[in-house]
Amino acid sequence: MYLADETWPDLGSYFAEESLALVPLGSTEQHGPHLPEGTDHLIAEGFAREVADRTGYLCTPTINIGVSPHHKQFHGTMWVDAPVFRDYVESFTRNLAYHGIDRVIFVNAHGGNVDHLREVGRRLRDEEVLYAIEWMWNDSIPDLVDDSFENNGPHGGPKETAMIQHLHPELVHDDELESARDGGVPSVEAANTEKFGSRTFYDAADNTDNGVLGDQTDATAEKGEEMFEAASEQLVKLCEWLDDQPFEDLTPKDHV
Amino acid sequence: MYLADETWPDLGSYFAEESLALVPLGSTEQHGPHLPEGTDHLIAEGFAREVADRTGYLCTPTINIGVSPHHKQFHGTMWVDAPVFRDYVESFTRNLAYHGIDRVIFVNAHGGNVDHLREVGRRLRDEEVLYAIEWMWNDSIPDLVDDSFENNGPHGGPKETAMIQHLHPELVHDDELESARDGGVPSVEAANTEKFGSRTFYDAADNTDNGVLGDQTDATAEKGEEMFEAASEQLVKLCEWLDDQPFEDLTPKDHV
Amino acid sequence: MYLADETWPDLGSYFAEESLALVPLGSTEQHGPHLPEGTDHLIAEGFAREVADRTGYLCTPTINIGVSPHHKQFHGTMWVDAPVFRDYVESFTRNLAYHGIDRVIFVNAHGGNVDHLREVGRRLRDEEVLYAIEWMWNDSIPDLVDDSFENNGPHGGPKETAMIQHLHPELVHDDELESARDGGVPSVEAANTEKFGSRTFYDAADNTDNGVLGDQTDATAEKGEEMFEAASEQLVKLCEWLDDQPFEDLTPKDHV
Amino acid sequence: MYLADETWPDLGSYFAEESLALVPLGSTEQHGPHLPEGTDHLIAEGFAREVADRTGYLCTPTINIGVSPHHKQFHGTMWVDAPVFRDYVESFTRNLAYHGIDRVIFVNAHGGNVDHLREVGRRLRDEEVLYAIEWMWNDSIPDLVDDSFENNGPHGGPKETAMIQHLHPELVHDDELESARDGGVPSVEAANTEKFGSRTFYDAADNTDNGVLGDQTDATAEKGEEMFEAASEQLVKLCEWLDDQPFEDLTPKDHV
Amino acid sequence: MYLADETWPDLGSYFAEESLALVPLGSTEQHGPHLPEGTDHLIAEGFAREVADRTGYLCTPTINIGVSPHHKQFHGTMWVDAPVFRDYVESFTRNLAYHGIDRVIFVNAHGGNVDHLREVGRRLRDEEVLYAIEWMWNDSIPDLVDDSFENNGPHGGPKETAMIQHLHPELVHDDELESARDGGVPSVEAANTEKFGSRTFYDAADNTDNGVLGDQTDATAEKGEEMFEAASEQLVKLCEWLDDQPFEDLTPKDHV
Amino acid sequence: MYLADETWPDLGSYFAEESLALVPLGSTEQHGPHLPEGTDHLIAEGFAREVADRTGYLCTPTINIGVSPHHKQFHGTMWVDAPVFRDYVESFTRNLAYHGIDRVIFVNAHGGNVDHLREVGRRLRDEEVLYAIEWMWNDSIPDLVDDSFENNGPHGGPKETAMIQHLHPELVHDDELESARDGGVPSVEAANTEKFGSRTFYDAADNTDNGVLGDQTDATAEKGEEMFEAASEQLVKLCEWLDDQPFEDLTPKDHV
Repeated sequence: MYLADETWPDLGSYFAEESLALVPLGSTEQHGPHLPEGTDHLIAEGFAREVADRTGYLCTPTINIGVSPHHKQFHGTMWVDAPVFRDYVESFTRNLAYHGIDRVIFVNAHGGNVDHLREVGRRLRDEEVLYAIEWMWNDSIPDLVDDSFENNGPHGGPKETAMIQHLHPELVHDDELESARDGGVPSVEAANTEKFGSRTFYDAADNTDNGVLGDQTDATAEKGEEMFEAASEQLVKLCEWLDDQPFEDLTPKDHV
Repeated sequence: MYLADETWPDLGSYFAEESLALVPLGSTEQHGPHLPEGTDHLIAEGFAREVADRTGYLCTPTINIGVSPHHKQFHGTMWVDAPVFRDYVESFTRNLAYHGIDRVIFVNAHGGNVDHLREVGRRLRDEEVLYAIEWMWNDSIPDLVDDSFENNGPHGGPKETAMIQHLHPELVHDDELESARDGGVPSVEAANTEKFGSRTFYDAADNTDNGVLGDQTDATAEKGEEMFEAASEQLVKLCEWLDDQPFEDLTPKDHV
Repeated sequence: MYLADETWPDLGSYFAEESLALVPLGSTEQHGPHLPEGTDHLIAEGFAREVADRTGYLCTPTINIGVSPHHKQFHGTMWVDAPVFRDYVESFTRNLAYHGIDRVIFVNAHGGNVDHLREVGRRLRDEEVLYAIEWMWNDSIPDLVDDSFENNGPHGGPKETAMIQHLHPELVHDDELESARDGGVPSVEAANTEKFGSRTFYDAADNTDNGVLGDQTDATAEKGEEMFEAASEQLVKLCEWLDDQPFEDLTPKDHV
Repeated sequence: MYLADETWPDLGSYFAEESLALVPLGSTEQHGPHLPEGTDHLIAEGFAREVADRTGYLCTPTINIGVSPHHKQFHGTMWVDAPVFRDYVESFTRNLAYHGIDRVIFVNAHGGNVDHLREVGRRLRDEEVLYAIEWMWNDSIPDLVDDSFENNGPHGGPKETAMIQHLHPELVHDDELESARDGGVPSVEAANTEKFGSRTFYDAADNTDNGVLGDQTDATAEKGEEMFEAASEQLVKLCEWLDDQPFEDLTPKDHV
Repeated sequence: MYLADETWPDLGSYFAEESLALVPLGSTEQHGPHLPEGTDHLIAEGFAREVADRTGYLCTPTINIGVSPHHKQFHGTMWVDAPVFRDYVESFTRNLAYHGIDRVIFVNAHGGNVDHLREVGRRLRDEEVLYAIEWMWNDSIPDLVDDSFENNGPHGGPKETAMIQHLHPELVHDDELESARDGGVPSVEAANTEKFGSRTFYDAADNTDNGVLGDQTDATAEKGEEMFEAASEQLVKLCEWLDDQPFEDLTPKDHV
Repeated sequence: MYLADETWPDLGSYFAEESLALVPLGSTEQHGPHLPEGTDHLIAEGFAREVADRTGYLCTPTINIGVSPHHKQFHGTMWVDAPVFRDYVESFTRNLAYHGIDRVIFVNAHGGNVDHLREVGRRLRDEEVLYAIEWMWNDSIPDLVDDSFENNGPHGGPKETAMIQHLHPELVHDDELESARDGGVPSVEAANTEKFGSRTFYDAADNTDNGVLGDQTDATAEKGEEMFEAASEQLVKLCEWLDDQPFEDLTPKDHV
């Protein structure tokens, strides 16, 4: 059920029965010469809507702009500063509780949002407003991702390329896959910016000239579809698990 | 040109020539028993994308959630608190300047966002970061709107109904138009909540039981189309006017 | 009853019986070559004290500095940034509740404060701290204002000139009324800064060279007195209406 | 010269020649059974206006509400929280620099504001916006104050009583002076709330039942007048000294 | 009992019986050519640990960096801005309440922290989170300090020199005591920066070339020891007094 | 060179030659029944002081309290909320630049601080104030850590136990190592709180009853010493590498 398409009386019927919401979040940022800047929010939206359709749970509109200052050197990257992102997500999530939502899954497809979503989740849980957790598709199927690619990326690599080839093939510049690979670096390690245990880079531009990592020619729409199916299934299970928990099991444990 | 669909090299070509961006903003909030909660962001997105297509100017992704606490009593209304909304819009708009954008049109379709967008615009202009102005479609064609309906609403009334009938007819519950009218109030005045010069209401629920105003049965897709064409034309002209201004004419005047 | 002139035991007698307070707010900003910069706070104070005298309700000291960045190009304009103004008003208003005040009228005479006072009022109402509403004198007598002047201004126009001629005639430079008119613009419309539905101006200086609008020579102290009487009467009625409401009718409605 | 009474062209003449402003600040808080709650802001306004008249320097409107949570237990005390007060004062003072003001005297008459005004002054000086210092009348004439009273108070004591007897005799309840003395405490020391080097009290109510200290019957309007004259003279000299300093001598010293 | 050296089960035993904590706070800032920059936090730690040992009450780790912008011109001075310091202290102190602490003594040895610790203490008391008070050793033994030195300083003077000679003799540059005296000023008064009742200085560098005041050659370890004993005894008594109070006597008094 | 032990003239000599500082940061939080709550800050201080001694670079005082809300259920855990921690670290680090520091290593020993230190580092780098990076000892010697223990923990496990056995053997309760192991869990995985790709736990108490993970009986002081030596060597190299970089290579790259 997609919240934005529904009227308030129809949503009232949902809230009368259910208290779970899926919130897709991504980013709008450079993804190399071959992928659209919307890659992350398109993937997040793809999963959240699919799983909402399969399960009947509520999906909210997508948060399209996230924490992406590390991609700012590349044209068109949009971002909000981290404290602002946290407050924005906290504000609308907190307000969902007004309608009876007490558990939320942040369906996230941008690594740069993870810590911030966890921080927001903590605030809301510690105040016992509601229980929110972050989910990223690739974390749910690590073996399949590892088996599918030699160098998965991560940013703008074959993993994300395959996913967009599956979800929005018209947005992939297939003729740029080789140049994406050749102009970037194979992996963060290859960029050699971790020194004596310290990450010395802050921006993607510190590691790669074209903004991406991995071997994009290794991507296919079929791999994308396989990963989409597998991860969607995981998200379905997460929804079911979460829905099954008594709310008191989701709140902070008592002091010892 | 839709930013999220483009790669960074393609966007680089845009920024090499142009410095204007259209940013659609709306809300996700109750719009009565007949319209989807996404009404406002769908309308904003409709105008911004259309005019970007016609003119070639850049359109960013849509901000789907706005300042809607005044609709909170109705199921599913999402909102962020006003200071958070301002900071979020300020942050990503400010960051657009990093790529060379120096003029922005907030293509807005939610009345509750107006003051906040103006406040953000002031901050950015006073610091001479960039020049941003707010535009709402109905303000650009007041006579046509007045002529089209006896009681245009505003919220969830025939004006917005006609627009969604035109843009997303599948999302309008045509069988609820009469009940929308009968369960609501004709106008804010009819609600009698302005007392001796003071607006005493804060929430839509203070004025109307079903959240909407006006006579929804007065709406048709044809009226929607006519308004959409007329207002799009106005927005095209605003883009052209804005693009024509030397940047120094857009910055604050000097002290007398 | 004027709070600042009273002792705490005398105020205790008031709070034992009453729970309403009038808070005058204005600005200190340019009002053209003929009016003092204190125009707005003088008017607000004038109404609040008069109505407190007539009704016996409590009037607090005046907030003299408001949100006036749009007049900054003119010598002497004082202002606080909008978020700071909101927090300041929220803080002292919230603290009034400690003494038992549960309803407040912001007697405001500066247009630039309106949205901010409404935003503060919402915060306090949503938290059920107290109920505060904004009142501006000219909104309470729109017909009389329209009938009194051809072009009322608004800023520094004959409407405000007449009011100061009535309340503080010694502060009006009568010999500057013609130059005020001739050096300004008749109305916002005449400034032609609304383009295709968008307000493109941010500052008074974008519209007018001397900071004011309308025909100041149309003002007389008699018109001022008539408006003062009529609007004071409206404010008296607002006090009475507000005092009559059970507090529970002033709090937010329940979720549908 | 009183800013609020002047037009912007007249203020332009001032700024063309001068760069100093006097800003009166006080509080609205209980001052016992005999003095009005406005005592502190009335005194601050009294000094600032008087010295502006004598010297020709500019005086702004008065800030009537300050940091007075320590008087909240007594009816009618108004206050803003300390961070809000600092931001409010910082905001309008900072904005004065826009007109050319580069040195400000906070003419303060409320002890609870001192630290906050110093903190604001530091911010503005460290950023080299302008140089602002705090002045309190009794600090400028400590010997005269000591000689005038056996127990000067401080809060609501004979020192402040005498000053209001001089400035606003109609606001002093002379028939309550004895009860003020008998219902309060002679001094902070007498309240015995400093324990082993630590101030253990936070509120006036922790020290005194009626909110005041000292022997109010020791006050006379003559003593008030004498102190007013003496302290005004000090403030005149401070203005002259401050005006004489080259601005670079008022900015922070360089790193050693 | 020193919190950082204990395990959580051992601390559980403490919290089962007691609800008082000592929190040492100081600064890291220049103290002239003869004293280490850690002087203030070393003194605070010295007292807090000693008294914790004598009484058995809990001592937390030391806050080493405080509000010292007024020493910034001298190499190595570290500081946090005042609002940040307040929020930091408030945050960890507030969180102590989670374990049952309801009374805290801020064992402070930096004058620049005093007002901020009082402001934090007020916030926590007004919300009835816990009761915290500030204590500085020299305020507890004013007569002994006065009797021990002709010119005690304050900053970097013989008072602090003697204390470090006692606590950490290896950190005192005894061969710099004369130059410390000769390169500084005898007292704030001697610097002549109070003008007509107003403190016109903001930084130590405004008063003294080497950062210190007083006659350092007047210091001896024996004086330091005597003061340490005497003030420790006062702090022991403060702990005992505080522990004896019923919590309801430590909360704000009711409205009159 | 330890900043707090030095005088300002001696620090002036350092800043004349060098621009690098080591800042130790840890936490004060439960570490099971066998380790002191100061474990993390003791380790951070141990490394930072050691490497400062070896290299001659400057070491600041230790930040003892960090972001540890996830340990709050266990007695004595102290913490500051995440936004407050970031602001505190940002403030004093930013101020170090005033003395000429342009590169900082956050010598951190608490996993819960990592993201926040990176966020602070970004702010300071993006504004080109200075360049700061985070370093954690175990990240610099991953192979040695892996080889030393079967289950290293992480929190309160044999890795940290061995380190405290080496640095502060008197603070380890050796008689509690078995109970630490038996009352905890072997690893995060073993706690089974990652569900379908989502981390569903927020607190240590969600995973373990006694707050710790791993097999503590596997720890020895010798292993601690070996790791301390190896990681210190890495930190020395990081200092040298960092000192060698031209500052312009440490600032953000230009827009492509």
